[in-house]
Amino acid sequence: MNKKLNWLENGTITSPKKFLAGATYSGIRTYAKDKLDLGILYSETPCTVAGTFTKNQIRSLSVVLDQKRVSTGRSQALIVNSGIANACVGEQGMTDAIEMASLAATHLGIDQELVLASSTGLIGVELPMALIKNGVTKITVSPDGGQALARAIKTTDRVSKEFAIEFQVGGNSYILGGIAKGSGMIHPDMATMLAFLSTDAPVNASFLQKALSKSVAESFNMIDVDGDTSTNDSVIIFSNGAGGGEEITDNSRDSDVFTEALNEICIALAKEIAKDGEGASKLIEVTVQGASNSNDAKLAAKSIAASTLVKSAIHGEDPNWGRIMVALGYSGAKVEESLVSLYINNVCLMESGVPIPFFKDAVSLTMAEEEVAIKVDLNLGESSATSWGCDISEEYVSFNSEYTT
Amino acid sequence: MNKKLNWLENGTITSPKKFLAGATYSGIRTYAKDKLDLGILYSETPCTVAGTFTKNQIRSLSVVLDQKRVSTGRSQALIVNSGIANACVGEQGMTDAIEMASLAATHLGIDQELVLASSTGLIGVELPMALIKNGVTKITVSPDGGQALARAIKTTDRVSKEFAIEFQVGGNSYILGGIAKGSGMIHPDMATMLAFLSTDAPVNASFLQKALSKSVAESFNMIDVDGDTSTNDSVIIFSNGAGGGEEITDNSRDSDVFTEALNEICIALAKEIAKDGEGASKLIEVTVQGASNSNDAKLAAKSIAASTLVKSAIHGEDPNWGRIMVALGYSGAKVEESLVSLYINNVCLMESGVPIPFFKDAVSLTMAEEEVAIKVDLNLGESSATSWGCDISEEYVSFNSEYTT
Repeated sequence: MNKKLNWLENGTITSPKKFLAGATYSGIRTYAKDKLDLGILYSETPCTVAGTFTKNQIRSLSVVLDQKRVSTGRSQALIVNSGIANACVGEQGMTDAIEMASLAATHLGIDQELVLASSTGLIGVELPMALIKNGVTKITVSPDGGQALARAIKTTDRVSKEFAIEFQVGGNSYILGGIAKGSGMIHPDMATMLAFLSTDAPVNASFLQKALSKSVAESFNMIDVDGDTSTNDSVIIFSNGAGGGEEITDNSRDSDVFTEALNEICIALAKEIAKDGEGASKLIEVTVQGASNSNDAKLAAKSIAASTLVKSAIHGEDPNWGRIMVALGYSGAKVEESLVSLYINNVCLMESGVPIPFFKDAVSLTMAEEEVAIKVDLNLGESSATSWGCDISEEYVSFNSEYTT
Repeated sequence: MNKKLNWLENGTITSPKKFLAGATYSGIRTYAKDKLDLGILYSETPCTVAGTFTKNQIRSLSVVLDQKRVSTGRSQALIVNSGIANACVGEQGMTDAIEMASLAATHLGIDQELVLASSTGLIGVELPMALIKNGVTKITVSPDGGQALARAIKTTDRVSKEFAIEFQVGGNSYILGGIAKGSGMIHPDMATMLAFLSTDAPVNASFLQKALSKSVAESFNMIDVDGDTSTNDSVIIFSNGAGGGEEITDNSRDSDVFTEALNEICIALAKEIAKDGEGASKLIEVTVQGASNSNDAKLAAKSIAASTLVKSAIHGEDPNWGRIMVALGYSGAKVEESLVSLYINNVCLMESGVPIPFFKDAVSLTMAEEEVAIKVDLNLGESSATSWGCDISEEYVSFNSEYTT
């Protein structure tokens, strides 16, 4: 990692200056043990803002509202609930999203147009606005509230996901913080994924959008199958400039330090999501190199990480490389069998299309760890990509069979 | 079904005239209980032949050989083994495929160019040619051998899949028989699927190919995700004309009766495959109607049938229609939420985008049956499609974690 980057201990979304947060239990998320279900992120001053949103044609009207408000490039707060997704409820969804933002605006004493509203949870059920109305009044935002907010956005997540990183641009030191929710599942993307980021660096809005889109493509979208997105997926970043200094744009000296910090935090959060599949015990990292082009590298890496047969084999610590080859073959990426080399945990199992006799027990033993690395070299070009997924266990199925409508 | 079609009791691939088959245990399939693992299909006279093959870029060289030989439009026999796929073994795969066909040709006393060779099973292991050479000599083909052949091609299949249907064209009565192997899995297509068909009707080779391609698109490919095909997938049909009468072409009177018979048998075999997933207990039939075009209808139906979250919900007999909507939304098909109507077992759960409050226990009770029907009306156009899949159970994962390399 770049020497100008430094992970903060216990870092979270309120680690950057003048970002406050808070959460409460409003009563929406009846099925979870970790009861916080409604939270607010607030910046003491208005921010530049950027976001990327689900491509699913069936989308929550909260997403539609946020997309519109983020497009202005300015925002100051976010209210979010877990438990109910505000999706597939007709036009009522827009009324409720606007009201939710408006309740937070009144509570915070700011313009309602500067507030975003986000939801995650069950589809097809209307938001219980009375509970939200009552809940908002109980939220106190503070500089220590980041961890509570990270807990409040969880649904099936086993752990909270939060990080902060310090970076230097133009002689100034800034912080970038972030929280996320989502779990790896079989198609990671089918569970709603939310990520919220904050920085006290003064980032120009259009540069912020450009940098975010690029980072999301190499992180959250790499635990994703193209097009397989949920109704509510959102990644939103706020920049309040409280760290001082000149506005950071595409042309600023060291602007790449900011984009690198953003990449690092997005990848860290994405890996946490990939690892947190229901019943999953291992993180699978798939690296494809030597692809003809970048799109092929991504297709191939994601196809392997998404294969349920590969996931099952890794769960069983079985170096079944044939399943990796099959997933590679149908990925859509250009593949020439006679050029492919394949590694599990750095042990070469196939070289230039020829299987290598290997000691199965030894490779299997390396797969007992919490992370399993698959590497494929297509030997066709110079492009590479990395994708992440989790293994699939019997518990995954139990869990998703019993999850209530 | 057309009145001119009639299912035969205990019908199989040797039900049509002058088709013989036989199988033996050669020792390849060490892991299965049902020991037959090498078989031959033989017609007493040369046939017209047609085939469709996997689109996976990693493919068995047996498939490459068959594709070449089928393209001549003429064949007389097929030798097939289960246990080892003859895939990912470099150029040796072609040598072995040719030798396998040649051994059968010598045994049957026919031209080796008229023999096809097919394999299914583990990837990355060379065919044990000594076992095959010895095994071939033990095979006796007979008009009663169809069921033995159907057993010999099984790998993880729980049941044999075989049917025959009688049909009339131009005043003549003919029989069409077929066998298949494959199991539904999560991505049905990732397990190798083989289907072999035979008819004593005299079908013109190019019409045979055209009819087969069309039927496969509406049957085997509808238990399949586009592009997700295994290394060895093949569907091959032989027509020996032993039933007499004039050659059947595209322009023959009643030629549509033949294509309908072919559709029926392909759909019947495909449904058997979909139902036979490891640990699966239910067949899921997804019908999408009102799509803008036929491709959209197929995309939407397959996306829903392939969703692991939908499969998990159905395993738990949980009418979780939100997961159906999500799969619809990312399918790539054009969808307008406010127009969608959705039914589980004919109970309407959503009408024109508005969820209908329904009695969950009653709908759940209807899902306790062996077949669950999902119907979606997109209300955008006139096209429809049907896809089939199975539910996913805890046993699926156990099975695929333990399946040995």
